[in-house]
Amino acid sequence: MGALHKAHLELIRIARQHAGKHGEVAVSIFVNPLQFEPGSDYEQYPRPEKTDEEFCRNAGVDLLFRPAGEELYFKDRSTYVEEGSLSKVLEGKSRPGHFRGVCTVVAKLFNIVVPDTAVFGEKDFQQLAIVRRMVRDLNFKIDIIAVPTVREEDGLACSSRNQYLIAEERKQATILRKALLKGANMAGTGETSAARLTSAVRETIGQAPLARIDYVELVDAQTLQPIEVVRQNSLVAVAVFFGKTRLIDNILLA
Amino acid sequence: MGALHKAHLELIRIARQHAGKHGEVAVSIFVNPLQFEPGSDYEQYPRPEKTDEEFCRNAGVDLLFRPAGEELYFKDRSTYVEEGSLSKVLEGKSRPGHFRGVCTVVAKLFNIVVPDTAVFGEKDFQQLAIVRRMVRDLNFKIDIIAVPTVREEDGLACSSRNQYLIAEERKQATILRKALLKGANMAGTGETSAARLTSAVRETIGQAPLARIDYVELVDAQTLQPIEVVRQNSLVAVAVFFGKTRLIDNILLA
Repeated sequence: MGALHKAHLELIRIARQHAGKHGEVAVSIFVNPLQFEPGSDYEQYPRPEKTDEEFCRNAGVDLLFRPAGEELYFKDRSTYVEEGSLSKVLEGKSRPGHFRGVCTVVAKLFNIVVPDTAVFGEKDFQQLAIVRRMVRDLNFKIDIIAVPTVREEDGLACSSRNQYLIAEERKQATILRKALLKGANMAGTGETSAARLTSAVRETIGQAPLARIDYVELVDAQTLQPIEVVRQNSLVAVAVFFGKTRLIDNILLA
Repeated sequence: MGALHKAHLELIRIARQHAGKHGEVAVSIFVNPLQFEPGSDYEQYPRPEKTDEEFCRNAGVDLLFRPAGEELYFKDRSTYVEEGSLSKVLEGKSRPGHFRGVCTVVAKLFNIVVPDTAVFGEKDFQQLAIVRRMVRDLNFKIDIIAVPTVREEDGLACSSRNQYLIAEERKQATILRKALLKGANMAGTGETSAARLTSAVRETIGQAPLARIDYVELVDAQTLQPIEVVRQNSLVAVAVFFGKTRLIDNILLA
């Protein structure tokens, strides 16, 4: 969606690794109206076109695909790609229609760009899982590469939405990472109860007076279904508002 | 879906024309469980594997793709392609879920086979319209070619399901074509009322005692929405049961 930052640079770096000598790295930038719920920040979403373009040029991107406005959609569009299981929880519960928009635009971009490999960040863990599922279910011949979340020095996950935060919110937003590390630490030292673990995470986040929790959940990292007891491959996922800005983050429990 | 007959041969012939000297013609045969409603003829649908294979060989097909059973689907599949406008009428009303199954499997086959061109018959006029819409909306780089309905000598549209008909049903099934020609004739001689036109078609079909009408509708051939008054590019579409066998046919009004 553009407003490129250092996490995108990491995606490009990994894409370049996979492209090798003879492959090309393409970046698509498209603020996809279909994945914004009514009344959300579609209009306000940053679109720094010049800077993004320079960013791509400096990063050695071979091809920048940046359709304008709603160019990708016909007015009488009526076909959607819908994932109906992984999409029902976490972000999908808070943002109905969001993943239908994501799947549809990613399928379109795949068909337009026809990549061999596509690179997604783990910050949007659920999106990554859903894209993988879509690729599998619809037989796209595309390797999906996951890139670990890139963070600011103080641990905040890089996100184009971070720029919405006013100074005090930005300061307090570091609580997300701290809370997730606290959860991982508890699991690492033997805590197995989802209830106790998520309570501790909530409590930690609650220490930031400007934080308003949307969800804190312990889920199976494969199915994304809520679990009661920590197991191999569990994920703690959080969504928290600071003012009007909604941030997400997650951590895998070893 | 196999059980190949002379209309499929025509599809193959047209595909060959488009493939040219250096292209290859691929046929996919897959009785797609997803497009059969519960309780319909999925189990009974004919699967004459040997004959179909010989048919393809004799027709000069280069590649036969015939996944077995439910091979194309994972047990925990959760991604579907859904067309939500053209799919709501005609067959979609009578067979809920049918076109979701069609779109999903066609998207999968497109991704597996990666054709430049795909050929569909006009007997399944709505399916053709929906596939075109899907290709447009999801940016598949595939030309969709429509092939006029191939008919038996007595006018019955070729269909794998015709073989279900017992002799007397088969005889009476010719009424579909007659009724549609009657409708086209009325329109050609100035009738513009959908009500009167479809009544006449229904009445004609009613002359066959074994016919049980599912629907007779006048629709816009682009949008497939019902219309009250005949216009340029109108379509009369019918679905009629003979015993348990459901037949469809259609005619474009000039």
